[in-house]
Amino acid sequence: MASNPGRRAALVDAGVEVLAREGARGLTFRAVDAEAGVPVGTASNYFSGRDDLLRQIDARVHERLTPDPEVIAGLMTRPKDRSLVAAFMHDLLARATRDRTGYLALLELRLEATRRPDLRTAYTKSVRADLEEGMEFHRTAGLPGGDETVAVLYLAMLGLLLEHLTLPDALTGVLPGVDVPGGLVDRIVATVVPEEQ
Amino acid sequence: MASNPGRRAALVDAGVEVLAREGARGLTFRAVDAEAGVPVGTASNYFSGRDDLLRQIDARVHERLTPDPEVIAGLMTRPKDRSLVAAFMHDLLARATRDRTGYLALLELRLEATRRPDLRTAYTKSVRADLEEGMEFHRTAGLPGGDETVAVLYLAMLGLLLEHLTLPDALTGVLPGVDVPGGLVDRIVATVVPEEQ
Repeated sequence: MASNPGRRAALVDAGVEVLAREGARGLTFRAVDAEAGVPVGTASNYFSGRDDLLRQIDARVHERLTPDPEVIAGLMTRPKDRSLVAAFMHDLLARATRDRTGYLALLELRLEATRRPDLRTAYTKSVRADLEEGMEFHRTAGLPGGDETVAVLYLAMLGLLLEHLTLPDALTGVLPGVDVPGGLVDRIVATVVPEEQ
Repeated sequence: MASNPGRRAALVDAGVEVLAREGARGLTFRAVDAEAGVPVGTASNYFSGRDDLLRQIDARVHERLTPDPEVIAGLMTRPKDRSLVAAFMHDLLARATRDRTGYLALLELRLEATRRPDLRTAYTKSVRADLEEGMEFHRTAGLPGGDETVAVLYLAMLGLLLEHLTLPDALTGVLPGVDVPGGLVDRIVATVVPEEQ
C-alpha cells in the first residue's frame, strides 16, 4: 500500500466529510477520492478495504476531538470541585460543536457498527477505552464522585451531544431560564455530580 | 394517492426495516417496494415523496414504541417514589430493545435530519412533544423531582439507549456488580432522581 502520510491523512479527513454528509452508504473509495480532489483509484492504494478506512476514520476523529493539553493544564490549576467538572464538560461540548462534522461521523460509525461486526469490535474498544480513561482521570484528579458518577455523566453528555448535534432546537426553552446547550451542561453536572468529594 | 390503509402501513413498516438496515441513503421507494414484496412503483402511489415517507416512518415508530396502557396502569397503582421512576425507565429500555429496528430507524432519522431541513423541523417537534409529555406525566403523577430531573433523566436514557443499541458491549463490566444495561438504568435513576418529592 502507498505510504505518503500527508496524503493518507488528507484521504481520511475526506472520508470523515463524506461519512458525515452522505452517511455510511455514501462512503465509497470513489467518493473519498472526489472529496479529496485526487485521481480515481487513489484511496484504494491507501486502505486495504472499507473496514480499514472506517477504523482510520475512528482514530482520526478521536485525534481531532482530543482535548487541548494547554486547556486541560489551565483547568487543572483550579480547585477540584463540581464547578471544575462542569468546566470539563463545557470543554467537551465546545470541542464536539466546533468539529460537528467529526462528531456526526462518529454517530454514523455507530450505526454502521450495527451492520459490521469487525467495526463493532474495534469501535467498542475505543469507546470503552475513552470511558475508562475518563474514570481514571476523574479519580486521579480527586474530582467529586466516583466511577458511577462518571458513567452517568458520560451517558447524559452522550445524550446531550446526540440531541444538540442532530436536533439543536428540540430542547430550546424546555427549562425556563436554562440556555441550550450550555445551561443544560450545568444542570446535568449539578444533578449528577455530588457537591463535595 | 392510493389509500388502502393496510397496504400503506405495510409499506411504512417496510421503510422502517430498510432505514435501519441500509441507512438513510438506502431508503428508496424501490427498496421499500422490494422489502414489502409489492410491485415496483407501489410506494410512489402511497407517498408524495421521500420527506413524506420519512415523516410517516417517524409517526409509525413512535406508535410502535408507545407504552402499553395496561403496563402503565399497572405501574400507576404503586407508590409514586423513585423505584417507580426506575420501573418506567426499565419499561422504556425494554420497549426500545424489543423494537431495536424501530429505535435504530429513529437514530437514522436524526442523522438524516441534519441533511433535510423539513425533516429536522418535523422531527424536532415530535421529540419536543415527547419530552413535554414526559414532564407533564411526571408532574401529574406526583413523581419525585421536577422538570429538570425529567430533562436530565431523558438525556441520560437517550445516551444509554444509543450506547446499548449500537455498541452493546461497550459498558459491560465497567462498573463492578452493575449489569448492563438494566443495572445502569437503576444507577441513572439513583443518581438523577431525588429520593423523595
